[in-house]
Amino acid sequence: MSTVHVFGAAGFAGAQLAALIDAHPTFRLGTITARGDAGRRLVEVMPEHRVAQELEAPDAGRVAEGDFAAVCYPHAEAAELVAELLDRGARVVDVSADHRLRDPELYPSVYGFEHPRPDLLQTAVYGLPELHRERIADADLVANPGCYPTAALLALLPLAGLVDDVIVDAKSGVSGAGRAPTAAVHFSTVTESVAPYKVFRHRHTPEIDQELGAQVVFTPHLVPVDRGLLASCYARFRSEAHDGGRLNELYREFYSDHPFVEVVDDPPGMRAVQHTNYAQVCPLVDPEAGRLAAFGVIDNLMKGAASQAVQNLNLMAGLPETEGLLASSR
Amino acid sequence: MSTVHVFGAAGFAGAQLAALIDAHPTFRLGTITARGDAGRRLVEVMPEHRVAQELEAPDAGRVAEGDFAAVCYPHAEAAELVAELLDRGARVVDVSADHRLRDPELYPSVYGFEHPRPDLLQTAVYGLPELHRERIADADLVANPGCYPTAALLALLPLAGLVDDVIVDAKSGVSGAGRAPTAAVHFSTVTESVAPYKVFRHRHTPEIDQELGAQVVFTPHLVPVDRGLLASCYARFRSEAHDGGRLNELYREFYSDHPFVEVVDDPPGMRAVQHTNYAQVCPLVDPEAGRLAAFGVIDNLMKGAASQAVQNLNLMAGLPETEGLLASSR
Amino acid sequence: MSTVHVFGAAGFAGAQLAALIDAHPTFRLGTITARGDAGRRLVEVMPEHRVAQELEAPDAGRVAEGDFAAVCYPHAEAAELVAELLDRGARVVDVSADHRLRDPELYPSVYGFEHPRPDLLQTAVYGLPELHRERIADADLVANPGCYPTAALLALLPLAGLVDDVIVDAKSGVSGAGRAPTAAVHFSTVTESVAPYKVFRHRHTPEIDQELGAQVVFTPHLVPVDRGLLASCYARFRSEAHDGGRLNELYREFYSDHPFVEVVDDPPGMRAVQHTNYAQVCPLVDPEAGRLAAFGVIDNLMKGAASQAVQNLNLMAGLPETEGLLASSR
Amino acid sequence: MSTVHVFGAAGFAGAQLAALIDAHPTFRLGTITARGDAGRRLVEVMPEHRVAQELEAPDAGRVAEGDFAAVCYPHAEAAELVAELLDRGARVVDVSADHRLRDPELYPSVYGFEHPRPDLLQTAVYGLPELHRERIADADLVANPGCYPTAALLALLPLAGLVDDVIVDAKSGVSGAGRAPTAAVHFSTVTESVAPYKVFRHRHTPEIDQELGAQVVFTPHLVPVDRGLLASCYARFRSEAHDGGRLNELYREFYSDHPFVEVVDDPPGMRAVQHTNYAQVCPLVDPEAGRLAAFGVIDNLMKGAASQAVQNLNLMAGLPETEGLLASSR
Repeated sequence: MSTVHVFGAAGFAGAQLAALIDAHPTFRLGTITARGDAGRRLVEVMPEHRVAQELEAPDAGRVAEGDFAAVCYPHAEAAELVAELLDRGARVVDVSADHRLRDPELYPSVYGFEHPRPDLLQTAVYGLPELHRERIADADLVANPGCYPTAALLALLPLAGLVDDVIVDAKSGVSGAGRAPTAAVHFSTVTESVAPYKVFRHRHTPEIDQELGAQVVFTPHLVPVDRGLLASCYARFRSEAHDGGRLNELYREFYSDHPFVEVVDDPPGMRAVQHTNYAQVCPLVDPEAGRLAAFGVIDNLMKGAASQAVQNLNLMAGLPETEGLLASSR
Repeated sequence: MSTVHVFGAAGFAGAQLAALIDAHPTFRLGTITARGDAGRRLVEVMPEHRVAQELEAPDAGRVAEGDFAAVCYPHAEAAELVAELLDRGARVVDVSADHRLRDPELYPSVYGFEHPRPDLLQTAVYGLPELHRERIADADLVANPGCYPTAALLALLPLAGLVDDVIVDAKSGVSGAGRAPTAAVHFSTVTESVAPYKVFRHRHTPEIDQELGAQVVFTPHLVPVDRGLLASCYARFRSEAHDGGRLNELYREFYSDHPFVEVVDDPPGMRAVQHTNYAQVCPLVDPEAGRLAAFGVIDNLMKGAASQAVQNLNLMAGLPETEGLLASSR
Repeated sequence: MSTVHVFGAAGFAGAQLAALIDAHPTFRLGTITARGDAGRRLVEVMPEHRVAQELEAPDAGRVAEGDFAAVCYPHAEAAELVAELLDRGARVVDVSADHRLRDPELYPSVYGFEHPRPDLLQTAVYGLPELHRERIADADLVANPGCYPTAALLALLPLAGLVDDVIVDAKSGVSGAGRAPTAAVHFSTVTESVAPYKVFRHRHTPEIDQELGAQVVFTPHLVPVDRGLLASCYARFRSEAHDGGRLNELYREFYSDHPFVEVVDDPPGMRAVQHTNYAQVCPLVDPEAGRLAAFGVIDNLMKGAASQAVQNLNLMAGLPETEGLLASSR
Repeated sequence: MSTVHVFGAAGFAGAQLAALIDAHPTFRLGTITARGDAGRRLVEVMPEHRVAQELEAPDAGRVAEGDFAAVCYPHAEAAELVAELLDRGARVVDVSADHRLRDPELYPSVYGFEHPRPDLLQTAVYGLPELHRERIADADLVANPGCYPTAALLALLPLAGLVDDVIVDAKSGVSGAGRAPTAAVHFSTVTESVAPYKVFRHRHTPEIDQELGAQVVFTPHLVPVDRGLLASCYARFRSEAHDGGRLNELYREFYSDHPFVEVVDDPPGMRAVQHTNYAQVCPLVDPEAGRLAAFGVIDNLMKGAASQAVQNLNLMAGLPETEGLLASSR
């Protein structure tokens, strides 16, 4: 029985991850940490998660060789802890953005900091199991994908190399913005409204580009939803050899041995995947325009963060990929 | 044409009030002030209000004798400005709680401060036009009612003296909590949930008691709504001489010359009054239990704050009570 | 391994119940039925539940002696099927209202039909495990409580006999109104509004009265929430010997061996129990007024319907009460 | 003072239109009709509109020569009434889709009926005042635009001829689907979810194509909002001579004498235009990708239907374009 420590367990993603590990049939929940809420039980901070364990001040010294650790910190704050944990012999899933981009030169422009350990960017594996399952199993450091890239990539991966002119119009629930109260997440700002933000300059764009192998136009929107993320993707076929029927088949083959991606016939809504690790994807072809739309929907805190981290931990520990993740379905 | 200055115009209630004055056929909008947002046009801070005027740092010196001023400050912060404005010869509607309670001894225990001008508590008129219309017309200082008391009092006033054992279970939209971002108003806290708060100890309780002339049990709830406030009131008749039909008639008579209170046959929902100065009230009798329920519903930012302030300003200026307030209906 | 058949599995409660049984470690899902949707797989009708099994036309003949059956029909439509299932030797949880009231004379006035089998009303056990756990274990027919009575009773039961003048002001999510599309559940009716309905005449009132042993005033409200039900209850102590501290202790003792009722210190919100079988209750005393408020919150489709039915089935089958119900927590 | 009759006044758009005419300073509200609700006052059917007038069964005979009429019927049901009203000498705004497409051959494939009066399709003027203001003023028949085309066209019109590869990803509030209760508009379906629908086959597509003069890819999404419509449009410049600064200027010039279109610097949200006739548009350029995004946001029942009809009626009657429409702002 392996131990999983959760650093940053009082945020939305970290608390959900701690709850999943706490209920996991094989993993044991190690230390759970939080700066502001140290000393309180997690259930007091986030009553819906019913994790009785106490939050502690972060201390890498509590992690033993061979343990697993998940780091749920804001970007720029995770890199040093991750390096220290690796030095101690732990295997790490970094839920932050600090090891997602392979090119260290992107960090100053995209995330505003010089990466302290560019060597780790070369060894880190991008933790989308549907793309890198075998490498994740062997990795010491897995970079858990961002929520937007997860939905967009799952919607688009079967088309990689076949399409051009990719546009991703994404709609995210508010929990993706984190637990810090700001004007942007005030109920009176969000309810009954939809608004685009960070058009052409959202930090998840280079991450999608890197894994898709193509430059995309990406526009996120905030919608009056707590959990859920829909990526509506548009593209143009390079050749004209494709139609809708074959496309659906292509997707089903691509994901045939991936238990958490459901290829559906009708464009999916958020409701079908909330509180689960499932993604639903749906490709559609406009026969007249030669255009294609591909939709991907996930729960941004689950497949977009916490439960995908568990999926990665399962793979790293040699467990079945679905262990502890099916019961989280409603 | 009288000038109305709005102090604290970058909060939800103050901005709405500035917008109502800006569109008012008779009043002229004077200075509008805000501490944090001074120098920006109001429309930049609150795009939905389309008030082009610039917010200024607060300065009582801008107010001339005979002007009107509305003060939309947090409690404890309004009292001194109000006194200064009165000294300058202005007539004031205090939208804060600082002049609602007649008994100065309540301020330390209820609001946590010693009232600097207890004399003004005796001259201030409680600004519920359905209760004190004549006195408001002559007042130099009107204390605009709280949102909860407005809904509860309108639901209960025709019964004052006839009932005992009054319980007020109220449900308020989130804008009532103000514009400051806190964990309590985070979208992810509020959406898809209803929760009671400050049970038995909400600051609006003594205000309801004072104007109703009876002690009530008051429990507020936060609901996933931006604007709207429903007070569900329960009481017991002192005598048994009442039934439902007579009760509805009693209400219709009581409010017969009050244009903004609509007595309705079915329990009202928030939707019927949103973005308006209307209140809807509905009394119902349980013939078996001898119990009575009376419902009152308002828009907490309108009849519960900004448009009620305009109603008071209209009365103070000798204008028709409804001036500039009917067009705000959808 | 016992078989549980679900009649009426395409409604909100029935589908949730089928999903819980489908994922249950001990029960086997038998036939699942639906009139309109027969022939479709449940997952096609309700994608969020991921139950692959096909819905069939209702047929009591598919139920064998010793099987369990849950009937999720509208009131007045369940009674005959329940009787037939019992005759075939099945043990039944009736999720409808058809066996909740012991007094057959109430059915014509409250539910509008003459009960076909008044004898069964005497043998049916009211399925609130926190009240009748032992009798449920032995019962052949369990009447699963209504959602409002579940929340109100759990909030009030420790006070039975100690208080008078009980008022229940309840707020329910929309899923409680069922899957049939009506004007009342149109998104544009519900969003951003709260409205009382069926004041003094809701069908759940006699059910609360019966189990509490006292006549209550009950007012339901529809709130813009999918799942969740909050009962805010007010009462007056018969004697004056009670205070808040002792009250909380009284509640903790009352529910000490009931795993699904959490006595909390602060008034609970819906979020803490959504998608779970948990109820949270919280009693508070107003020392000045001698008044008491007691809050109870549940997920109306879970503890208010489907998961409470599983809790009852567990008890009837001699299984641990929590079997298959803890994993449904988020 | 001209009379405006409203046919189909019990739907969302028709009731809003009747309320706007009822409060209009110059127009007089003529007959208001409804099939199902005839005999009831409009305020009883839609309490938020406070129109005291009684709904009548539809009767073209009530319309006199020189009167105006607005027809708020479902598509295919308006064409015959419109023709009859024109024959009687009325001037008509058809809020339905029955006269929006100039090509009669599109009606069978797009709307499923053979158009009874193809001649009227040639004389009808497409009622987007920002495009056809002069022709609207002289028209006897104005085809009021669909809600999606209004938002998309306002976002894209300044670019007509300059761009290719136009993709419109639109998000609409639920009121756009009308008042009929269906599973798709059930609160429990809509809340906390976003879903695409009618991908590549929504009926508003040919309408956008016609007025833009280019074929677009159009994907509507339903969002958990009552009123509001955001069109997020993506396109590619034909030449490379454009940048963002010039683009914003281009938009400001294009709309310089159109009072209801606001060109804004940051991507707009729905909140800024709800309950008003305003549209906000915002063009943005990605300098690296040579891609452009243009956003347009409206209230689907106002600028997307009812208040745009009033704007058209104002123009037809020779009134100021804004008459009766500014007061509807909050």
